[in-house]
Amino acid sequence: MTDRGKFIAFEGGEGCGKSTQARILADRLRQMDIAVELTREPGGTPGAEAIRALLLDPPGDGWGPQAEALLFAAARADHVARRIMPALNAGRWVVCDRFVDSSRAYQGGAGGIGDEAVQTLHAIGSGGLRPDLTIFIAVPSEIAAERLTKRDGDAADAIGGRSAAYHGAVADAFAQLAAVPGDALITIDGADTPEQVHARVWQAVARLLHSA
Amino acid sequence: MTDRGKFIAFEGGEGCGKSTQARILADRLRQMDIAVELTREPGGTPGAEAIRALLLDPPGDGWGPQAEALLFAAARADHVARRIMPALNAGRWVVCDRFVDSSRAYQGGAGGIGDEAVQTLHAIGSGGLRPDLTIFIAVPSEIAAERLTKRDGDAADAIGGRSAAYHGAVADAFAQLAAVPGDALITIDGADTPEQVHARVWQAVARLLHSA
Repeated sequence: MTDRGKFIAFEGGEGCGKSTQARILADRLRQMDIAVELTREPGGTPGAEAIRALLLDPPGDGWGPQAEALLFAAARADHVARRIMPALNAGRWVVCDRFVDSSRAYQGGAGGIGDEAVQTLHAIGSGGLRPDLTIFIAVPSEIAAERLTKRDGDAADAIGGRSAAYHGAVADAFAQLAAVPGDALITIDGADTPEQVHARVWQAVARLLHSA
Repeated sequence: MTDRGKFIAFEGGEGCGKSTQARILADRLRQMDIAVELTREPGGTPGAEAIRALLLDPPGDGWGPQAEALLFAAARADHVARRIMPALNAGRWVVCDRFVDSSRAYQGGAGGIGDEAVQTLHAIGSGGLRPDLTIFIAVPSEIAAERLTKRDGDAADAIGGRSAAYHGAVADAFAQLAAVPGDALITIDGADTPEQVHARVWQAVARLLHSA
């Protein structure tokens, strides 16, 4: 029987370095001959990518917080059912750029629908699936802002482009989530070079390798 | 102060005559100088119509029942927040072709996610809004099938095109919902001409007019 793969999610605000760290980690695991699916939210399946397009470039006047939270949960339900669970069950690892804790911080905290509602949507949509390890990358807001201005040409999307107050509330909500102790969640300082940050990520992931 | 408008939803399976009856009712109310929004679900706002397109013509392999239920709830949240509540609060009536009881019958009953999950999504997304009057139109399945074959050229969509067993389960679920007594819900025999069916609809609506 194949052992179940491990599920690792990166979380944090815009410009914290999640996507870079997810890619570096996936590459390193592959060099160890571990089969890895590198994916992202919202997205990761044809259906969820179509929902992503609606979320980041909304028709009409933009989504209210309730519709936005339901759309994220719908995209996640498709991603979990069609890609994440099949991969894990086949023994592949999944490295995901954002998962449910982003919904808890953005829609639950900053958007004001509350953590209980987000968790309820996740229970209904995706059976409450939790990663084996969630890595929060924390960076001071000045550094995140500097990194975002260096990105090529991309105009900010409907969520990334919200006010500094909104993104401050996201950061506060992430900090609250990260403060709850547990083996499946670590916070990493993301203010250094990608290599330095990766070394910290790797320390946490190594524990999962030994338990595999 | 303006009196709140009345909210009337038509419900039933494919080919029961809901859309026709909603249109006839809206026309008659307008002839009485009542301002009416005639709308439909999924849809009714730019955002909800975009979700409708994803639901009826899904990318990839089609939606699972959880993602489908979340998408319907997201479309409804936008429709309620952006169109239904503003209309009712401004004193306009809303006549809607399908509302939450369709989700209860299709995704909750036939789709198997259960009534409690659908009601929870509706509570989170739309504050649990209920119509002032829900009109179930019941027709024998042979008559509905005959009407559907007469529709011009439209290929069946991803939901309408499901198996006879699925649509049988939808009909059973509607019958169960209709069996719960209450002033805000009536079942009408839809097997006659549109004019005959409308006469039955009007009897029920007339009570709302007198209470307005």
